Amino acid sequence: MKYGIVIFPSKEIQDEANSYRMRYDPHYALITPHITIKESFEADKDEIQTIIQELKSVAQKSKPFQIRIQKVSSFFPVTNTIYLKVEPAQELIDLNERLHTKNLPNNQTYSFVPHITIAQKLSDDEFADVFGSLKIQEFNFEEEIDRFQLMYQLENGTWTVYQTFTFDKE
Amino acid sequence: MKYGIVIFPSKEIQDEANSYRMRYDPHYALITPHITIKESFEADKDEIQTIIQELKSVAQKSKPFQIRIQKVSSFFPVTNTIYLKVEPAQELIDLNERLHTKNLPNNQTYSFVPHITIAQKLSDDEFADVFGSLKIQEFNFEEEIDRFQLMYQLENGTWTVYQTFTFDKE
Repeated sequence: MKYGIVIFPSKEIQDEANSYRMRYDPHYALITPHITIKESFEADKDEIQTIIQELKSVAQKSKPFQIRIQKVSSFFPVTNTIYLKVEPAQELIDLNERLHTKNLPNNQTYSFVPHITIAQKLSDDEFADVFGSLKIQEFNFEEEIDRFQLMYQLENGTWTVYQTFTFDKE
Repeated sequence: MKYGIVIFPSKEIQDEANSYRMRYDPHYALITPHITIKESFEADKDEIQTIIQELKSVAQKSKPFQIRIQKVSSFFPVTNTIYLKVEPAQELIDLNERLHTKNLPNNQTYSFVPHITIAQKLSDDEFADVFGSLKIQEFNFEEEIDRFQLMYQLENGTWTVYQTFTFDKE
């Protein structure tokens, strides 16, 4: 089965992201707006049990942290994906690293750029239009992150949460 | 914010349900296949924290239990919703009851009929066709349930998991 790990930002940020995604993101219906912190990986029933124990341990060693979103950015020219740029807080970078060590699959193919996708698979003209108008816009979101979610993918491509892992709040 | 509580069955059952939902359920894209165990209710930030504590307590007092699905059924003539009928295991009925007592909103408007919706809002002709062919079909799913999920709804109608509550496995 295919798994992945994400952070869901607050409803406020998700609603903002969806206002763009409904028009510009063909993956709109597959998963609600999210920050991927571990790309999709394969695991069988036994493997995922080991992974879940490891994820509990990672979450227990993590403390809640703040994220900030101030602008959109793009992966152009690699892809024409447009995203809400999540300022790379050190705790977020550390969390991403801890999710790729020890018994956890080391499946990261790109360097970690925390982001919430709002547009992808656009034509060149669409991309130029949409990015042109969004990149001059200012955003001002700041919030606390205190959990991540282990997801699995169904045959139709949609994602379901298997388990929530909350950080240590002491 | 609007919250609800569901059980997600295994990927196998969800894939089966989606094979019908993609054609017959306009809510297909809003949430993956699920058993609603507490209908949607409103809660503010403070209220939901109290509710979460209560949900932890309910989950800790619950043990994993088996569910079985053997056939489809329908809410006709009240609505023309068609669903995979989940045999009402006593533990599932007890869980539903515990989610409507003490500090938890007592918002249940119908008697509890555990089900996984696979078709809804069909025309009368479509309903007769689809239900006619599905009601003579046999299904044979049996699996263990060991968790429920607290969800919240975004402005576009889709649902995101806020937190998973796992049962006591001792």
